Amino acid sequence: MTHAFPQPQPPSAVVLLSGGLDSATVLAIAKSRGFDCHCLSFDYGQRHTHELKMAARQAKLQGALSHRVAKVDIGAFGGSALTADIAVPKDRSDDAMTHGIPVTYVPARNTVFLSYALGLAEVLGARDLFLGVNAVDYSGYPDCRPEFITAFEKLANLATKAGVESLESGAGPHFRIHAPLIALSKRAIIEQGTTLGVDYAATSTCYDPQPDGKPCLHCDACQLRLRAFAELGRTDPAA
Amino acid sequence: MTHAFPQPQPPSAVVLLSGGLDSATVLAIAKSRGFDCHCLSFDYGQRHTHELKMAARQAKLQGALSHRVAKVDIGAFGGSALTADIAVPKDRSDDAMTHGIPVTYVPARNTVFLSYALGLAEVLGARDLFLGVNAVDYSGYPDCRPEFITAFEKLANLATKAGVESLESGAGPHFRIHAPLIALSKRAIIEQGTTLGVDYAATSTCYDPQPDGKPCLHCDACQLRLRAFAELGRTDPAA
Repeated sequence: MTHAFPQPQPPSAVVLLSGGLDSATVLAIAKSRGFDCHCLSFDYGQRHTHELKMAARQAKLQGALSHRVAKVDIGAFGGSALTADIAVPKDRSDDAMTHGIPVTYVPARNTVFLSYALGLAEVLGARDLFLGVNAVDYSGYPDCRPEFITAFEKLANLATKAGVESLESGAGPHFRIHAPLIALSKRAIIEQGTTLGVDYAATSTCYDPQPDGKPCLHCDACQLRLRAFAELGRTDPAA
Repeated sequence: MTHAFPQPQPPSAVVLLSGGLDSATVLAIAKSRGFDCHCLSFDYGQRHTHELKMAARQAKLQGALSHRVAKVDIGAFGGSALTADIAVPKDRSDDAMTHGIPVTYVPARNTVFLSYALGLAEVLGARDLFLGVNAVDYSGYPDCRPEFITAFEKLANLATKAGVESLESGAGPHFRIHAPLIALSKRAIIEQGTTLGVDYAATSTCYDPQPDGKPCLHCDACQLRLRAFAELGRTDPAA
């Protein structure tokens, strides 16, 4: 006689997946922490869609439970080199790359993205949201800093049925926002992802890729990535 | 000889405009406080689009500078009677209307809407965001409470270039979130809007209107509205 014992279901998480190196690493980290992952990407009028193809590929490669692409209208507001007709800077000095808020900043982008992720998490019954923001290499983006993440987590628990019910019952915060890369260098991110088996050939980081999806190798994002692989004595598998 | 003196430009504001009674009143309040108003509505897969027609009409009637309709995907997540195939409750008792979180709650809706408004405000150079949430008649919605508004205002000033630059310069918070109806009864809202000349015939509040846009008169939203007009000895001009 055999008994089938009910197995505990792994908790599920919503992972913001752009198709870049960082979010591919975050997906691997979420999985390594025991989460079943629902991936969420955005078509926000970015000038290149190659990264959305890479997002779909990563979700599949890493065994995600689902992958959604939400179409959002923020690109129509303009104001960023990533969505409007503003030139992406090339071959800048280190100093220019790390000081001030870059023209590639998209107004309120991470706030919009996390809001969608929160709505999805509430519907799916997930408590954990993962995103690949990084305050080291992109210190110029206000919505990549720890203060922003903390403020959003607080908001999330006040904004939702699940959050409010948990706070009112005394069970503490329901939603947790995880930004596991926030204090890591690009090099450390690549090291961690490599350990977890991330295939970086199937990622797209470039702000201004060629029509076939190949990186320009000259924008800030390409330069940071190339340098990090070089520091590790490796060549960028997507270059 | 005549001199043309430069005139101060009125400050501009972003007003979330649903086409309902509350947001029509908020638009009038923002205008009465001296703001030039950019209105923002959302097509989020709500089952009725009559309210979007009323939003466009209100923006025009009240002399807004612009009116945008952003299409957002949150309806696809499901989970609400307003976007999914869940019955809208009819003819409920007062007790059922004011206790617990209603099935008409849309997950993270106001968080998503305010995030868009924030992005638009940043692009337009507006500092003031207005929305018509109300904690009295809809106490069941977590994202209609003062704690939510306060948390979003804090987030807004950490999430944006303009917000961070203002905080870092010592100038204090850049963005202000105004919820002027938050503590008003429906009756007081109608009184205030009437004083400001709002045409409530051109508003839509019903959760489940007929195909021609006429209200059902039985859902919670209709009942609250009918009762408020009755208390004022008036008939609802949209009924």
